[in-house]
Amino acid sequence: MHSKFIVIEGLEGAGKTSAINVVVETLKRYGVENVVYTREPGGTPLAEALRQLIKEGIDGDVVSDKAEVLMLYAARVQLVERVIKPALARGAWVIGDRHDLSSQAYQGGGRGIDQQLLTRLRNTVLGDFRPDMTLYLDIPPALGLSRARARGALDRIEQESLDFFDRTRARYQALAAEDRSILTVDASGTLAQVSAGVRGQLERWLDAQGCKP
Amino acid sequence: MHSKFIVIEGLEGAGKTSAINVVVETLKRYGVENVVYTREPGGTPLAEALRQLIKEGIDGDVVSDKAEVLMLYAARVQLVERVIKPALARGAWVIGDRHDLSSQAYQGGGRGIDQQLLTRLRNTVLGDFRPDMTLYLDIPPALGLSRARARGALDRIEQESLDFFDRTRARYQALAAEDRSILTVDASGTLAQVSAGVRGQLERWLDAQGCKP
Repeated sequence: MHSKFIVIEGLEGAGKTSAINVVVETLKRYGVENVVYTREPGGTPLAEALRQLIKEGIDGDVVSDKAEVLMLYAARVQLVERVIKPALARGAWVIGDRHDLSSQAYQGGGRGIDQQLLTRLRNTVLGDFRPDMTLYLDIPPALGLSRARARGALDRIEQESLDFFDRTRARYQALAAEDRSILTVDASGTLAQVSAGVRGQLERWLDAQGCKP
Repeated sequence: MHSKFIVIEGLEGAGKTSAINVVVETLKRYGVENVVYTREPGGTPLAEALRQLIKEGIDGDVVSDKAEVLMLYAARVQLVERVIKPALARGAWVIGDRHDLSSQAYQGGGRGIDQQLLTRLRNTVLGDFRPDMTLYLDIPPALGLSRARARGALDRIEQESLDFFDRTRARYQALAAEDRSILTVDASGTLAQVSAGVRGQLERWLDAQGCKP
């Protein structure tokens, strides 16, 4: 069984962390113990420094939309080259808390950055490197944000308007509809319901890959 | 007289700082007093933070070539949108210590990053925004580096091999040969000779723009 790169995506408050726990536990039942976790932006010292600049800004210098997307891709290529590809090469599975789809949805959908620019950036920077499978946790923005708010302070991106998240969700849904490697899970239910949805999608996918529990 | 964006380019130790002083003083003789100075990468809090990450790295995380070029463009677009364009719009002249040509020469020539990728990045990120004129200070790398060494510690980029700087200079020269907005100054002579070269090129250019001393 070749190692795989599995990504968890979704709006703030969609339940990515809980979903990742379900993924790890499910993989363990399928005999996959060698798992590397990454989060984006971040995952290397450079990428974490970029994450902080993107999320917090610095000295009141408002990060321009284009600077933001370039920093996201800088962090991403650093993570892919230094962590993800080496991990896959030595046989580990990689579970990504966000990856390229986040930029397509948040920067493309939310911020309205030209989709062609993003596609060009992705192809230029990452070549044909893609996740093997993405679990997209779909949730209405208002519900996700109320969950995110309940767990503490909101960062610069989490403070965007509801319109921003509506556009982001619409882009997530549109991309999920046209890409068969993106599997959607309804994330509006209880923790138990969402976990069951994640487990079900992942098991079907693992079975299709020829993996056995 | 419309405000202009003038850029000074060249290898380490080519004498950019002295040249900038000559430019400021020459502009003053032509009645241009409202001058904004920028350096790249840098010039805004975000861009300076990116500069430090590019130059020093962080916690031993080696900056990948693609991450470097994306961070350079992030810093550049931030500077252009937040500082350079607003300054030009309010009638100031802008003198840039490096700009896009540095990425074309160092990353394209020195690091061997695909020229098409760089061109695409530039056009995507900056649109058709370009300097009105660039003064390129041409110097043999060994001479430039010995000058740079004499003034103190070398950073990550300044520690590159001589081959790296040979390739960078070759790209500078090739780009200067095909772009009429890039004026070359021989920077291998004494300070007085180089200053005279800068003054001469700038004066001819100002005269051609219809400026009067």
